[in-house]
Amino acid sequence: MRTIDAFNHFFPKLYYEALLETPAGNKDLGKRVRGIPALSDLDLRLRLVESFDDYSQVLSHGLPPMERLWGPDKSPEMAKIANDGLGEIAQKHPKHFAGWSALLPMNAPEAAAREAERALNNGANAVQLATNANGVPLDAPQFLPIFEVIAKSGKPILLHPARTREMPDYPTEKVSKYEICSVLGWPYETAVTLARLVFSKIMDQYPDLKVIAHHLGGVIPYLEGRVGHSFDQMGVRTSDEDYESLRKSLKKRPYDYFKEFYGDTAVEGARAATVCGLDFFGADHVLFASDCPFDKEKGPGYIRDTIKVLASIPLSNAEREKICWRNAVTLFGLSN
Amino acid sequence: MRTIDAFNHFFPKLYYEALLETPAGNKDLGKRVRGIPALSDLDLRLRLVESFDDYSQVLSHGLPPMERLWGPDKSPEMAKIANDGLGEIAQKHPKHFAGWSALLPMNAPEAAAREAERALNNGANAVQLATNANGVPLDAPQFLPIFEVIAKSGKPILLHPARTREMPDYPTEKVSKYEICSVLGWPYETAVTLARLVFSKIMDQYPDLKVIAHHLGGVIPYLEGRVGHSFDQMGVRTSDEDYESLRKSLKKRPYDYFKEFYGDTAVEGARAATVCGLDFFGADHVLFASDCPFDKEKGPGYIRDTIKVLASIPLSNAEREKICWRNAVTLFGLSN
Repeated sequence: MRTIDAFNHFFPKLYYEALLETPAGNKDLGKRVRGIPALSDLDLRLRLVESFDDYSQVLSHGLPPMERLWGPDKSPEMAKIANDGLGEIAQKHPKHFAGWSALLPMNAPEAAAREAERALNNGANAVQLATNANGVPLDAPQFLPIFEVIAKSGKPILLHPARTREMPDYPTEKVSKYEICSVLGWPYETAVTLARLVFSKIMDQYPDLKVIAHHLGGVIPYLEGRVGHSFDQMGVRTSDEDYESLRKSLKKRPYDYFKEFYGDTAVEGARAATVCGLDFFGADHVLFASDCPFDKEKGPGYIRDTIKVLASIPLSNAEREKICWRNAVTLFGLSN
Repeated sequence: MRTIDAFNHFFPKLYYEALLETPAGNKDLGKRVRGIPALSDLDLRLRLVESFDDYSQVLSHGLPPMERLWGPDKSPEMAKIANDGLGEIAQKHPKHFAGWSALLPMNAPEAAAREAERALNNGANAVQLATNANGVPLDAPQFLPIFEVIAKSGKPILLHPARTREMPDYPTEKVSKYEICSVLGWPYETAVTLARLVFSKIMDQYPDLKVIAHHLGGVIPYLEGRVGHSFDQMGVRTSDEDYESLRKSLKKRPYDYFKEFYGDTAVEGARAATVCGLDFFGADHVLFASDCPFDKEKGPGYIRDTIKVLASIPLSNAEREKICWRNAVTLFGLSN
């Protein structure tokens, strides 16, 4: 079956070279990205895509969020370079790359809103947002104009987890102990951000905003019971804030907002989790994605495993088509 | 079918009265617990248990962890009062309460190890540990003697999530914004603690230690792919610590340790999550639990919903018996 991979990562050349020159690029980031050639080598990536039948990718930039790498004096310029680079690749290789998403200089919020508009006008099919901007949550007021631009465009947000520098596993430890933050903390961060989009009323303000949460909604589908029953009781644990009034002032039951988000299938080939996430979001709100090339084989592993897992799950043909490509065509506004 | 509820909460009288007199008891905690009578009213609780067929509970104390409520000068004494109180209730009402778990004064680690030994000798069927002790992770060296005592006893740990005071959703905010920490953060905390028990090598040191992780393993089963593939790559993201050597020095693949933990079915009646968790842990490592009385009805809701969910899942009779009561009999050492 035709497959469009909605969330996977690639660094265009100029942006890649620039990030390797940053302090982070000289340390862990450089170690990590140099070790995965398909993250920046276009020829290799083209061959990787070709190795799967009837398969194409919507490209997103690699992490970390750019505001970690450059100050606000430099980040708007780097965002343009990054987005023009990715757009150019997608334009040159439409059979391999069905589309692309833009990144934004979130440490320069006004420039970020302008860049969102520019990139979306220049053909970006989505905007990739990290779950926080150097530790500032996405519902901070300075980011509202960004949501405004994206909501108006009709294009979706690809929500990618990012740890806050200040969010270690335990507060006394500077380094993420045992890499727990990236392995387990990222999907938690995604869930936190979805909750904040709901309770800050951004979703009430922009009801048509489409948010695709990486890794099949973070941990939301597994916590369906809590998302339902516990958020229904919001307010009973807290006396410092009037969360009961907040809850009652929302336009919908908290649970309903979470069901309206979208998830992708990038769960490293875990079948039971895929079934659980599909049950939660439904076939209309799940998109195929692999998180390529972060598998052990540095490219094909998660694509192959995710295709295999989906093939093993009983679905109607209509549901399967939606998940594998139709939802992507609709959400990203791709030519069918 | 006979059902033993492995994880649910009750405050014995003297302990309950004492906690209401603490500063927390005068604030949010008091507001919360007074609002749920079945948490401390024994007659009500007995009637609640009787309202289900062939159903009994292994009682655990309510949260928060006692080290939040009393200093180390007072907590060892309060632990004795709490444990003797719960033990007495279980002894008086064996048809209603198949067993009970002890709590420990974790801010007085030496006294905690002694109390674990005393309580286990006095009939405690398990020890309930919170995932951190006032923000100190359970793998801190001062807690090792506690694990030693529990491992020797053969009885399991009931691992309950607890937020650290210092772990807000974002570091600039003192209060858990929108109650995200308790709703979504607790299952994450559980997963963090399981990971720390693995990577600190406590599980290598005490390979027979049995850990029952509340809420069906926190978020671990949904993150099965990451627990497998991402922890297999531990070390590639970090240069400050040699996590590659640590990983290689473990006796097993990280994933295998997580599969050997136990989970309970307390997921607020979410069917897809129950299926996902059962798939991960298997019928030999899942125990029925309700988290009673924290449902909206303040008692019967989660028991009824969880029984219903399990009944709807296709299982062999042998598997169903294990989950509903046989695993509890074995792990808690109950009279069959």
